[in-house]
Amino acid sequence: MKTDVETVRGQLKKLLGPSRFLSQPEDLAAYGYDASGLKFLPWGIAFPETTEEVAAIMSLANREEFYVIPRGSGTGMSGGSLPIKSGLVLVLTRMNRVLRIDEENMTAVVQPGVITGQFQKQVERVGLFYPPDPASLNVCTLGGNVAEGAGGPRAVKYGVTRDYVLGLEAVLPTGEIIKTGVQTAKGVVGYDLTRLLVGSEGTLAVVTGITLRLIPLPPHRKTLSVAFPTLEDAARAIRDVMGSRIVPSVLEFIDDASIRCVEGKLGLDIYRDAKALIFAEVDGHAQDVEYQCEKISEIVSRHGALKFLTASNKAEEEDMWRFRRSISPALFAYAPHKINEDIVVPRSRIPEAVAFVQTLQQEEGLFITTFGHAGDGNIHVNLMLDKRDPEQARRARIILDRLFREVVRLGGTISGEHGVGITKSPFVDLELGELGINVMKRIKQSFDPKGILNPGKMFPELPKEQGIDRIFSAV
Amino acid sequence: MKTDVETVRGQLKKLLGPSRFLSQPEDLAAYGYDASGLKFLPWGIAFPETTEEVAAIMSLANREEFYVIPRGSGTGMSGGSLPIKSGLVLVLTRMNRVLRIDEENMTAVVQPGVITGQFQKQVERVGLFYPPDPASLNVCTLGGNVAEGAGGPRAVKYGVTRDYVLGLEAVLPTGEIIKTGVQTAKGVVGYDLTRLLVGSEGTLAVVTGITLRLIPLPPHRKTLSVAFPTLEDAARAIRDVMGSRIVPSVLEFIDDASIRCVEGKLGLDIYRDAKALIFAEVDGHAQDVEYQCEKISEIVSRHGALKFLTASNKAEEEDMWRFRRSISPALFAYAPHKINEDIVVPRSRIPEAVAFVQTLQQEEGLFITTFGHAGDGNIHVNLMLDKRDPEQARRARIILDRLFREVVRLGGTISGEHGVGITKSPFVDLELGELGINVMKRIKQSFDPKGILNPGKMFPELPKEQGIDRIFSAV
Repeated sequence: MKTDVETVRGQLKKLLGPSRFLSQPEDLAAYGYDASGLKFLPWGIAFPETTEEVAAIMSLANREEFYVIPRGSGTGMSGGSLPIKSGLVLVLTRMNRVLRIDEENMTAVVQPGVITGQFQKQVERVGLFYPPDPASLNVCTLGGNVAEGAGGPRAVKYGVTRDYVLGLEAVLPTGEIIKTGVQTAKGVVGYDLTRLLVGSEGTLAVVTGITLRLIPLPPHRKTLSVAFPTLEDAARAIRDVMGSRIVPSVLEFIDDASIRCVEGKLGLDIYRDAKALIFAEVDGHAQDVEYQCEKISEIVSRHGALKFLTASNKAEEEDMWRFRRSISPALFAYAPHKINEDIVVPRSRIPEAVAFVQTLQQEEGLFITTFGHAGDGNIHVNLMLDKRDPEQARRARIILDRLFREVVRLGGTISGEHGVGITKSPFVDLELGELGINVMKRIKQSFDPKGILNPGKMFPELPKEQGIDRIFSAV
Repeated sequence: MKTDVETVRGQLKKLLGPSRFLSQPEDLAAYGYDASGLKFLPWGIAFPETTEEVAAIMSLANREEFYVIPRGSGTGMSGGSLPIKSGLVLVLTRMNRVLRIDEENMTAVVQPGVITGQFQKQVERVGLFYPPDPASLNVCTLGGNVAEGAGGPRAVKYGVTRDYVLGLEAVLPTGEIIKTGVQTAKGVVGYDLTRLLVGSEGTLAVVTGITLRLIPLPPHRKTLSVAFPTLEDAARAIRDVMGSRIVPSVLEFIDDASIRCVEGKLGLDIYRDAKALIFAEVDGHAQDVEYQCEKISEIVSRHGALKFLTASNKAEEEDMWRFRRSISPALFAYAPHKINEDIVVPRSRIPEAVAFVQTLQQEEGLFITTFGHAGDGNIHVNLMLDKRDPEQARRARIILDRLFREVVRLGGTISGEHGVGITKSPFVDLELGELGINVMKRIKQSFDPKGILNPGKMFPELPKEQGIDRIFSAV
C-alpha cells in the first residue's frame, strides 16, 4: 500500500460514512471467515450501496494499491471471499434490489446482493423459474453465485448459474464500469466477457449488476426417494435412469454413512436396511411427470430397490429434502472439522470414484462420506477430522492428493460448483496444466495489472506444500 | 513477415507435402471468399490433418510472423474467415473425424472439420440430440460453429453452440496446444477459457478438438405453419405463444415480401392472402406435443389466423421447411447483392424493430425483407441492392447505421449468430463501447502478442468510413 492503513481508513470512512465502513476488531473478525471454516483478518469492511461507490472504492484501491476482496454472504466452500493477505472486504449485501423482472421477455436485472432463494420465490410468483439452487440458497447471494459459478441439484436438467447469466455490469480493478453481454436471448458480439467473469471468483472485476435469463416454471413436479441394499445397485439404477433418456430435474445419491448420520441425528428409522439412497425430482406437465415417475419406478425395481416413496404433498416433499439437507450438519457428530470436496467424474465413472473413496477411507483411516449430484457426476466427498491432530491432518493431505489425481485420471474435474478459492489452489495444476495456468495469469494481468483484486485465489501462488498448509492451519 | 513469401511457402510445402499446401492462383481464389460475398486473396492454403500439424504451422507463423486465417467450410456471413490482409488460410476440413460418441455420458469428441448436419444425424441414430442448427448445417463445420458462436432456429428452446461446448483443444498463436474445460456435465476450475474461445472468431486460438454435450432426442415433434392477415397479428400471436409459457422448439416469422419472393420462385399459391407467416415446431413426448399444438392453435385463432397447417408426415414437414429455406436464395430475384444482418431485440420489441425496418425501406428506397427467429428476437434483415451502384451503396450505408443504432436503443445486439467478422466491425463500438473494446484488445494481446491470428476481425481496426467501404467495395 502506498499510504498507511489509517489514512486509507479515513478516506473510506469519508467516502461511505461511519456506518458503512467498519474497522473495529470485532467487525474485522466477523468478516474474516466463510463457509470453508478458515479465518483471516482484513483491515477494513466496506458496505457500498451503489455501483458508483464500488467504482470510487476501486479507484482508491488502484491509486493506493490496496487489496480488495469482494464478498456476498460468505457461504462459499473454497475460501474465495477470505482476505488471506488482509485488505478491504467489500460486502455487497446492501446492493440487494431486484431492479426488474421482465415477464414478457423472461429476463431479470438484479443487484449482486439479492438472496438467491428470495429471488426464486419472487419469479415463481409470476410463473417464471430461475433453476440454480445451491444448498445455501436461503442465505447466499446471486453475486456470489455468479462469482463462483454455483450449481446445485437441479443442474442435471437445468444447468448452472453460468447458463442463466446474459449480461453483467462490473467494476474493473481500475474503477471503470463495464457492461458485458446482452439483455436478449442471443448475442455473439465480441469476446464472451460475461462468461469470462462468471466463475472468476472476484479476481477480475466486482460484479455490480446481473441480467438473468428466466424460463417458464414447470407446472408440476414430484419428489421421490428410493432405498437400495447396496451402493452398486444404486449406481446401476442411476446409470439406467439416465440411459433411459428421461432427465430428472434432480437426481441425488446418499451413501450408507450419510444415511446413518442423518437417521441418528433426526431420530428416524425409515431407511434401516438401506446402504444407499436416491432422491429424485421430476417435473413438467402432469402426464409427463407421471410418465417419468413410472419409468423410474420400473428401473429401480429391476435393481433391487427396497423402498420407493413419492411425496404426495408439500409436507412430505419438505421431509424428504430435510433429510438430504441434514447430511452436512449431521456429519459434525463424527469430528470437529469437515473438508468438503465437490469432485465431478463422467457419470459412468461414479461407481469407480466412489469405490476409490472407500479405498482411501480404509487405507488412510479417516471417516469419509460421499453424497451428491449423481445425475451430473458431481460427488461431494466429506473428510471428517480434527485438523489440530497432526496425524489426522497428514492423512487428510494424502487423501486429497490421491483423490484429485484419481479424479483427473477418470476424466473429471476437481470442482463442479465450489470453485478453486484457496482450498483447491494447490491442486489446480493437476487439471489445468502449466500452460492453462499461464494463459489465465495473462488474462488476470490484463484485467488487474496491479494485482489488487482478491489476491492469492485460484492460482497456485504458494509452493504446493505451503498452499496445503494454509488449508490445514487456518482453523 | 520476416522471410519472403516464397521461402515460407517452401517451408509449408515441406511440412505438409505438395498436395496439402497450395499456392496456385486458382487455389488462392477458391479460398479467398466466404458466404459474405466478399473476396480477398491469401498467399497460401494449408490443409493440416492433425493437431500437431496445426501446432507446427502456428509455430512457424509465430517465428516468421505471418498471418494465419483459420477456416472451415466458409459459410460464415460476416467475413470471419477472409484473408483481408492476405496470409495463410488454414483449412480445417480434413480434420473431420468424430472421435467418440459416449452414449452413457451423453458427450461427444469431434474434430473441427466435422459437418454439423452429419454429426446431428450420427448422434440421432443412437437417440441423442445436438440441437444447434445454423441454416448452412449441411455444409458448415462444427469448428466454424464454435468460432462464430453459431445459432439457428432451435435456439429459442435449446440455446446456441456455446451451450453445448464442454471443452476444447486449441492451438495458441505460439504453437502451444491447450486443453480447456471439462468432459463432464459440470466444472468451475479456472477461468472459463472454453467460452472465451467460443465466438472469438479464430482471433485467439485455432480450435482443433471439441467436446460437446448431447441431450436425449425428443421422441416426437410436429411442424406447423400459420398465415396471418397482417404482420401485427403475427407479432401479437408470437408474444402470446411465448407468454403462454410453452416453449416451441422453433418459432420463425416471415414477412410479406419474403412470402411473395418464395411463392414466385417455387410457383406456389398457398399463402395468397397472408401478409405474414409463422413457422413453428414443437417437440417432446406425444401428449406434450399435442398439448402444445392445441395451445398454439387456440392462440393464433384469437389473432385472426387465416390458415393453420400441421405437417402430418415427413414429406409435408420437408415442404414447410423448404419454403423457409428458399427465402434467402429467392431474394436474389430482386438484386444481385444481399446484405444479411442478424440483429436481436428483446422479443417484446420485435414489432417496433420490424416497423423501423419498414420505415427505413420507405425512407431510403431499398428493398428490405425481414424474417427470422421470432422466438428469441433474432431478426434477419436483408437489404437487396447492387453494390456497384454508388447511390444504392450510399443508401445501404445509411440504413445499416440507422438500423444498428435503433437496435442498440431497443436493448438489442447487432449480431445474434453471425458474429462480427469484418462486416460488423465498423459498428461494434455502438454496442461494446470504448472500454469493452479496450478490455477485448488486452485479452487479444495476451493470447496473440504478435497479432498473427486472423488479423483485422472483430475490432474496429479501420476508421469507421473506411471499414464500411471495405464491406461495399470487396464485391
